[in-house]
Amino acid sequence: MDLSSLPTPCALVDEARVAHNIERMAAQMRRLGVALRPHVKTAKSLPVAERQRAAGARGITVSTLKEAEQFFAAGFDDILYAVGIVPGKLAQVRALRERGCKLKVIVDSLPAAQAVAAAGHPFEVLIEIDTDDHRAGVKPEEARLLDIGRALHEGGAVLAGVMTHAGASYELHDPEALAAMAEQERARCVRAAERLRAAGLPCPIVSVGSTPTALSARRLDGVTEVRAGVYVFHDLVMLNVGVCNADEIALSVLATVIGHQDEKGWVLTDAGWMAMSRDRGTQAQPVDYGYGAVCDEAGRLIDGLVMSGANQEHGIVGWRDGHVDATLAQRFPLGTRLRILPNHACATAAQFPHYEVIGRDGALTRWERFGGW
Amino acid sequence: MDLSSLPTPCALVDEARVAHNIERMAAQMRRLGVALRPHVKTAKSLPVAERQRAAGARGITVSTLKEAEQFFAAGFDDILYAVGIVPGKLAQVRALRERGCKLKVIVDSLPAAQAVAAAGHPFEVLIEIDTDDHRAGVKPEEARLLDIGRALHEGGAVLAGVMTHAGASYELHDPEALAAMAEQERARCVRAAERLRAAGLPCPIVSVGSTPTALSARRLDGVTEVRAGVYVFHDLVMLNVGVCNADEIALSVLATVIGHQDEKGWVLTDAGWMAMSRDRGTQAQPVDYGYGAVCDEAGRLIDGLVMSGANQEHGIVGWRDGHVDATLAQRFPLGTRLRILPNHACATAAQFPHYEVIGRDGALTRWERFGGW
Repeated sequence: MDLSSLPTPCALVDEARVAHNIERMAAQMRRLGVALRPHVKTAKSLPVAERQRAAGARGITVSTLKEAEQFFAAGFDDILYAVGIVPGKLAQVRALRERGCKLKVIVDSLPAAQAVAAAGHPFEVLIEIDTDDHRAGVKPEEARLLDIGRALHEGGAVLAGVMTHAGASYELHDPEALAAMAEQERARCVRAAERLRAAGLPCPIVSVGSTPTALSARRLDGVTEVRAGVYVFHDLVMLNVGVCNADEIALSVLATVIGHQDEKGWVLTDAGWMAMSRDRGTQAQPVDYGYGAVCDEAGRLIDGLVMSGANQEHGIVGWRDGHVDATLAQRFPLGTRLRILPNHACATAAQFPHYEVIGRDGALTRWERFGGW
Repeated sequence: MDLSSLPTPCALVDEARVAHNIERMAAQMRRLGVALRPHVKTAKSLPVAERQRAAGARGITVSTLKEAEQFFAAGFDDILYAVGIVPGKLAQVRALRERGCKLKVIVDSLPAAQAVAAAGHPFEVLIEIDTDDHRAGVKPEEARLLDIGRALHEGGAVLAGVMTHAGASYELHDPEALAAMAEQERARCVRAAERLRAAGLPCPIVSVGSTPTALSARRLDGVTEVRAGVYVFHDLVMLNVGVCNADEIALSVLATVIGHQDEKGWVLTDAGWMAMSRDRGTQAQPVDYGYGAVCDEAGRLIDGLVMSGANQEHGIVGWRDGHVDATLAQRFPLGTRLRILPNHACATAAQFPHYEVIGRDGALTRWERFGGW
């Protein structure tokens, strides 16, 4: 493996780790007996989604209509747009559907359901369920769940099911608590489906998921599919949550040492927040890695060394415990290359137009990705 | 002005405010009798840099070699790359220079100076001075300042001058403290220049700057040029610092209301952290705006309403004081459009491939921007 041809900063992906992460999640889904509909918002990259499909994934989840457009153009036709739909976006959804894309949308309110049902096209719609009091969704016991279901089913829409995302799982770091959150996500979403069915409404799809709950679930009775995204790359937040090991983190940023401030124990690099993103997701977790954990160029973690600060194109590297080590300048002289593991792979990946991929044989290839809306 | 044709989220730029901000800075530079070398890292957009040039700017500052390549291709040939150079990047710098680009680089250590001087090309080099104990640079009184100067001048390089950036000014919010920081930045950088000259070394350029110090400086004796970037758009960090008013913030993100959580007083929008960035620059400032300050679609600030939380494609809007207001759902129903002012314009702008520009006549145009390295 020779990374010397790569300009810095750049986003490095370890193909063997991606393959391992995909197979690990696929095996977990086989064990649980459910389909996997991976969320492609993490990598936004066709070669990644193709590997997920090859490992058995059925359909994909997207966070923007641009992702739907891009992946449909590349042959993915079973797509769930997992952000609440608004009337102003229905024309684009309809155009995609009329071109053959089985694009499904979600709603969590009566006004949204009524707008979709009245839009003159049999949109496939899932009702978003709030199973963890975290963000959006209808609580499973709320009366309006049935009102929304009826507005869709008795209006002009196709009530395709229910979906939920237990984002609160990111705040946990205990295996038992994670398993309990996975069970809560499952039970409450299934409960919503049962209420709809008891009211005579259809509910074929029961879709749940997040990387932490997907990897922590012990049973998923009543669930038809799981959505998860960040598991393809994993990151330091997932390491803190406890659902991956450091050697499963497949994304890093290659950086070059550009200077030192010896009296502060600082090594300065050319990977600032523009490269890492401003995500400080480990700040409130058991281990705060600053803007990232530091590895040598070969990817070996240097225990205790972190990216403690960032400006736009400057990163500051030092010991996590803050002690001043003037020998860092000798250890990592000007021009030394380091790899920084990200707090949040979705945010860091989004800073780059493509990935420099280290193949299983050590050869470098490139995977394109896209951004924007 | 009709923004209904714009998809959300998108980055909106108010052209009249950009023009005002450019003229305000240009007038300040004329008053101080120094040249302005704007930092193009904020907008990374040719139409913005062209307006700065038309207002009298001489040369530009860049934070990446990609910016140098892009702006040189568009006719800007006097460029300062204001991040410490490393040997691995000299070939690209040299290639640009041999194509006619007067690209200058910076160093802040003897190893870097020696590497540049020995590279077989008369690179123009500025020595970075640390005037605020903030990031990189040589302190003006350090002995090694002269060693670095000699290594450049007596090696094969052109010692073009000194430069500094008082990034610590971002942490201030008192006019007197800001003026004092501007004077410190000036005095210490000029002192470094005087030491070099007293040692018989050339130092034609004395380059200082940051938006807060540029707008707060009362005199700049001995300085030849000022660098500043974020002033073209301004943002909530600059509002808190006290160097702009809210109606000078020229960048906002147009968002659509996608749902509500009434019992929490939340309005959910389709502008999450992917649109705003994860920058929480106002967190430690006098007013913490969360992920941004909320305006109506016409751009009128709604006092006290902020973007309090963010997921990738979900924004949470509520009152800054945290009180639960269930009437927000009636006031901002599904489909309502809002504008969010950013904490940090450089970070938010970087999330978008282009700007939707509201012209002086209210008509919409588009300015492209680029990212990456």
